[in-house]
Amino acid sequence: MLSPTTLAAAFERVTDYWSPKVIGRVNNQLLKAAKLKGELVWHAHDGEDELFYIVKGSLRIEFEDGPVDLAQGDFLTVPSGVRHNPVAREECWVLLIEPASTKHTGDEMTPRTRSLEEQLS
Amino acid sequence: MLSPTTLAAAFERVTDYWSPKVIGRVNNQLLKAAKLKGELVWHAHDGEDELFYIVKGSLRIEFEDGPVDLAQGDFLTVPSGVRHNPVAREECWVLLIEPASTKHTGDEMTPRTRSLEEQLS
Repeated sequence: MLSPTTLAAAFERVTDYWSPKVIGRVNNQLLKAAKLKGELVWHAHDGEDELFYIVKGSLRIEFEDGPVDLAQGDFLTVPSGVRHNPVAREECWVLLIEPASTKHTGDEMTPRTRSLEEQLS
Repeated sequence: MLSPTTLAAAFERVTDYWSPKVIGRVNNQLLKAAKLKGELVWHAHDGEDELFYIVKGSLRIEFEDGPVDLAQGDFLTVPSGVRHNPVAREECWVLLIEPASTKHTGDEMTPRTRSLEEQLS
């Protein structure tokens, strides 16, 4: 028997900022819950789009041609290869959709970078 | 410059029940907005998972081993090949995630069946 996941409840598994947890999957894509505050790092994912959906709060994503501001209920797909840097002035909850192959911070390694194993734990 | 989509606004494009509209994409998956009321038809999608996220209202999905009830904020992935039938007692808004190759009602053709072209319009 299949059992549904409640999105808000899934966020209870997320205890640290910038440390996404895998909460579902569809075909070859993972759904991840993340809580963000502050900024991550400029990076790109070559070969993989990354969708941000704002569950709570708001998020600015900086791009090389300027920032895009997302409010609660907005979503945006960052296309493969496009350099970006998420910045959350206040705590923001995001749902991410991306392939299992996606590296958290692209080719940038930072103390905040999380492996897929950490995201599955 | 990328521009975000507001989920609630995207549902304004949906004017008919059981007639999903493509509102976004990430990698090889389409995001679709649909308004449901009543029941669709028993069907399966061979080779493609289908994710249902309940934006507003509630939805029962009937499976061969029993029904699963989804409330607002719940999501469920119907695995590839699993026969199912969505039933909405009252109007329900769902976000669907599935590949472009997914046929609306699997191999069942009904008056409600919508082509991908109709979903993109």
